[in-house]
Amino acid sequence: MVRQRLIKLYGLSEPRIAEIFVKLQGKPADAVLGFYPHFPENHITISLQGEDEPTVTAELDQVQAEIFSLVGDYIFSTGNQEMEEVVGRLLTERGKTISVAESCTGGLIGHRLTNVPGSSDYFCGGVVSYSNQSKVDILEVSGETIKKYGAVSDETAQEMARGIRERMKSDLGLAVTGIAGPDGGSKDKPVGTVYIGMSSAEEVFSRRYRFWGRRKQIKLNTSMMALDWVRRYLNGDPILSGI
Amino acid sequence: MVRQRLIKLYGLSEPRIAEIFVKLQGKPADAVLGFYPHFPENHITISLQGEDEPTVTAELDQVQAEIFSLVGDYIFSTGNQEMEEVVGRLLTERGKTISVAESCTGGLIGHRLTNVPGSSDYFCGGVVSYSNQSKVDILEVSGETIKKYGAVSDETAQEMARGIRERMKSDLGLAVTGIAGPDGGSKDKPVGTVYIGMSSAEEVFSRRYRFWGRRKQIKLNTSMMALDWVRRYLNGDPILSGI
Repeated sequence: MVRQRLIKLYGLSEPRIAEIFVKLQGKPADAVLGFYPHFPENHITISLQGEDEPTVTAELDQVQAEIFSLVGDYIFSTGNQEMEEVVGRLLTERGKTISVAESCTGGLIGHRLTNVPGSSDYFCGGVVSYSNQSKVDILEVSGETIKKYGAVSDETAQEMARGIRERMKSDLGLAVTGIAGPDGGSKDKPVGTVYIGMSSAEEVFSRRYRFWGRRKQIKLNTSMMALDWVRRYLNGDPILSGI
Repeated sequence: MVRQRLIKLYGLSEPRIAEIFVKLQGKPADAVLGFYPHFPENHITISLQGEDEPTVTAELDQVQAEIFSLVGDYIFSTGNQEMEEVVGRLLTERGKTISVAESCTGGLIGHRLTNVPGSSDYFCGGVVSYSNQSKVDILEVSGETIKKYGAVSDETAQEMARGIRERMKSDLGLAVTGIAGPDGGSKDKPVGTVYIGMSSAEEVFSRRYRFWGRRKQIKLNTSMMALDWVRRYLNGDPILSGI
């Protein structure tokens, strides 16, 4: 019998994935590893042949454990789950609610979260603050902050994350602001520059990213990173610093 | 030489599409029509063979004109444009801005509108009011309305459309509220029941729809119908009453 397992990762570059393959070579000898880039995710499959179900499952578990020991933080699914399903399950398990303030993603994060049946139990809602005025009016981002640091900045991302959390009375507030292109980039903040912010009752923090690709790819990658922040945060894993 | 044209329709049932094919049979004799359901859109292709470009183009235009005379209101693209590109072009041409209040679509309408480069010129932003509280707090839907008619109702859709327009200071306000399922349906309002509302400076109106399918399909169909409303409104075409 042959059994296969699908492991989904996000946030690792392909050369780093290649290293895993080198390290795993030949343990066990009959494991066949497959690599499938599935933008912006990376998928690894483990195929194993064996006499019976328990033996094959045990061997699959062993290979999976090896991969976890190398890059566990980057693995978001060992079944065939989407990132939004994983995040939904974690929010449910932890009894936490979330809301989102989206600029460059235009609603994609909320759309993904609400693709999951039952998401109304943990998703309170969101604001798509495409204009600066809406950031000020609805999210209570200070006009001074936008003037001083720009709408695409750590400061604005943090105020958005704080604002949406307060507005929606949720446990977590997630915010993204960036330049999806093709226009709007500058030397300091080229197309693909994105700030992600998160707020809880205890803290507010943000990070800068630079994503590559066209408009839809930048939006997709931003939504993926933002959702991965929630996954990592709820798992107690370190938030990614750059990609 | 052979030339093909792609005509995209939305809102016609397949039996009604079949009628077009019967009526168009043999005019002109060498036109080959193709039908491709592309949920939730329907695509028709016209293929024609001829001596030279001008002759073939004239014949394609003739067949296209015949299709327009039968079901012109339902055609949203004769190039290869997405609905959101068509809506974006119309908003730009008319010099109008829009904002969206989304419940069951969770952000999908905003996501689609912002897939179009330059959409920040006409898209002010949106609110994903997944909870009743956010409908009241941010969109200023009256708690009384929700209590009396329900969150999924003509009245709530209209107040959402009015609220988002005022909040975002846009020319048009678009709102959707519905039951995407699999849970939440009732005898009166089964899964797939959706209300779409629209507001302008002059008027506010709404309609009830019943969409079929699973959660993602109901969300997609709702976003499509809402965007088609904008297209029809800006074209001066009648808004669809049911589907």
